[in-house]
Amino acid sequence: MAESARTYPPAARVGVPEAPPAQDDPARCAPAPLDGDIAGAVAAFLGEFFADRRAAVEERPPDDAADAGGGLDTVLDAEFQSEVVARLAEFTLSGGKRIRPVFAWWGWRAAGGTADGPAAHAALRAASALELVHACALIQDDVMDGSVLRRGRAALHAAVAEQHRRSRWSGGSGRYGESVAVLAGDLALVWADDMLDEALEELGARGGARVPWRRMRTELIAGQFLDLRAQAGRQESPDAALRVDRLKTAAYSVERPLHLGAALAGAGGGLVAALRGYGAGIGTAFQLRDDLLGLYGDPAVTGKPVGEDLREGKRTLLLALGVERALARGDAESAAALRDGAGEPELTAADAARLAALLEALGARAAVEERIARLVDEGLAHIRGAPMPGEARRALETMAVQAGTRIR
Amino acid sequence: MAESARTYPPAARVGVPEAPPAQDDPARCAPAPLDGDIAGAVAAFLGEFFADRRAAVEERPPDDAADAGGGLDTVLDAEFQSEVVARLAEFTLSGGKRIRPVFAWWGWRAAGGTADGPAAHAALRAASALELVHACALIQDDVMDGSVLRRGRAALHAAVAEQHRRSRWSGGSGRYGESVAVLAGDLALVWADDMLDEALEELGARGGARVPWRRMRTELIAGQFLDLRAQAGRQESPDAALRVDRLKTAAYSVERPLHLGAALAGAGGGLVAALRGYGAGIGTAFQLRDDLLGLYGDPAVTGKPVGEDLREGKRTLLLALGVERALARGDAESAAALRDGAGEPELTAADAARLAALLEALGARAAVEERIARLVDEGLAHIRGAPMPGEARRALETMAVQAGTRIR
Repeated sequence: MAESARTYPPAARVGVPEAPPAQDDPARCAPAPLDGDIAGAVAAFLGEFFADRRAAVEERPPDDAADAGGGLDTVLDAEFQSEVVARLAEFTLSGGKRIRPVFAWWGWRAAGGTADGPAAHAALRAASALELVHACALIQDDVMDGSVLRRGRAALHAAVAEQHRRSRWSGGSGRYGESVAVLAGDLALVWADDMLDEALEELGARGGARVPWRRMRTELIAGQFLDLRAQAGRQESPDAALRVDRLKTAAYSVERPLHLGAALAGAGGGLVAALRGYGAGIGTAFQLRDDLLGLYGDPAVTGKPVGEDLREGKRTLLLALGVERALARGDAESAAALRDGAGEPELTAADAARLAALLEALGARAAVEERIARLVDEGLAHIRGAPMPGEARRALETMAVQAGTRIR
Repeated sequence: MAESARTYPPAARVGVPEAPPAQDDPARCAPAPLDGDIAGAVAAFLGEFFADRRAAVEERPPDDAADAGGGLDTVLDAEFQSEVVARLAEFTLSGGKRIRPVFAWWGWRAAGGTADGPAAHAALRAASALELVHACALIQDDVMDGSVLRRGRAALHAAVAEQHRRSRWSGGSGRYGESVAVLAGDLALVWADDMLDEALEELGARGGARVPWRRMRTELIAGQFLDLRAQAGRQESPDAALRVDRLKTAAYSVERPLHLGAALAGAGGGLVAALRGYGAGIGTAFQLRDDLLGLYGDPAVTGKPVGEDLREGKRTLLLALGVERALARGDAESAAALRDGAGEPELTAADAARLAALLEALGARAAVEERIARLVDEGLAHIRGAPMPGEARRALETMAVQAGTRIR
């Protein structure tokens, strides 16, 4: 993939549903600016990556020693293609709002990256690799949580387990499904790296962008661990909850994507600091809004049942503040109700509604709302004085407001 | 880590047991050639990597935006350090014979890489990153197999589960241990990449070495999947067994490490093809010898109980040839005995001995021995005409013979 300069990916060929605007006129060579449909372009780049991977592994002989280019020269078995690669491709290509590449794109544009042309396409291709890291996180997260549903369909491990059961294969179906899902996650993680690397070769700029990439991956893993650890240890401190939000959501979903995009454009320390400050605030606000929606939102909109976080024992800031406030008032009964409810797998919708009302009466909901407002203000203050093009500033301001209200 | 030129790592500082020979005279600045104690130098590089990681995450403030260098600027929590990073460091630093970096080193030397000096150190540092990939493979493999022992001690997931139980944490201990082990494996995988990257920056040569690195990682994951798949599907074909050996052992442990080392030295296609041909043959021979030792070797030497592969249902060439030969003779009883024994968790040592004798009587053992001899000859033939320094040729010849007889 490294040897040829890239043009806008031909969406029709790779079977990606969202046709990018530049494809309207097939005779047109110069691609349209990407600002208008970032998510569509990301989906097209991902579709092209999987199509290239599949073509490369199907066409090349196993002992081809030419070894030029970035593809694979190993013929991978049909089972691996259909039972792992195809599942990973489907999972990745059907994925959500592409929030992480979108933030990376605006980091690129904020740092003066062009809106179109080969460099812009390479930058957005690099940013699209974030979706593969995210696929790893979600696929393995579902294994760890034992969640059988994702995006309204069977989680990857559950689908593989079902195939095992239906095929009457040997051994435990659940164990097999989980093992294959862990491997599919690993594959997403290493292919993310391949995709980034190939884009960086096109872009001809390397070192700077590797720094946020490295850090983001470690922060994601650390955040995921601390989330598990907080649940296991039933940690109650608001600081511990915020620490998980900071690593698992803010750094991974907003701050480092912005940092990555800015580094791709060769941004200096001042702008990077401003964008990271924005990302830390906005990313944390985004998570806190998500926590509130999980208990006070409409399940038809959020896509998950009310109180799911409580049921799973997730240590949210909302819960931590509720317990803290109950204890400060000497209200042992309320504290006990919250403690017993968190991590109770049999928690009913009525139980969840009762705890939601309790958290509201304790002032925890209002305290989280205040925190969100403050984080959004602080995040926006970080970019106020930073020099950047008007489009980038407007986009970041809009996304800050969306993160504080609702974005997903 | 990228900003300063590296000297030989101070083994004492990083607490690595095997002191490299260059440390005998502390006043000496120029490092001794690495040929004599490759494994010791690899251990020292890994020790230094973990020490640097730990120092970086302990010392830097969380919002430091300077972002130079390759370390982390995120302060990672004490729990993550002690419960994940320290466990991964211990696992990696206590690891075996460093076979993969050793092959990479001889790929480097075969392609004309120097025996000492800064470039040699950077090349061996890059090769040492293979041990972190291997740590990921072993840690996650133990989760998938449900193996509670590794290198005579508790497997990582089992140790974490025990900590959970002892601490009376919330939720299931087994599930928690497995989740943390999957994350520790992910961390090893991404840190392998970081370590390679930092070494490549030192070396100033990048593109070529990324090709075998990318392919090896995909081949490893594909090989691991095909191994699980063959067990689940009780696949009986000798070709299917050899395919797993080719990807999971030969490509990952010998062929791609040699390719990586040669690419670090800028080797051309001819030498790479010769080394890969050698690696494919020798690596497969190595695995077949391991399979034979598992049934006919001394458990005090191999470190695992006789017949463990049979018990786990591993689809070895030995088993596949046994079933094939029994069926060809119309000996349904022997075929049934082998099929029933493979994957039987209650298989006793006496059962294993009986099946070992049966495989011998069917000629399967001798057929595998013949195959090993042929693979070693074919592997050696690949490097016979290839130009390379005498030390590298002698080392590769010695390792070929060891792989065919016993090396681990």
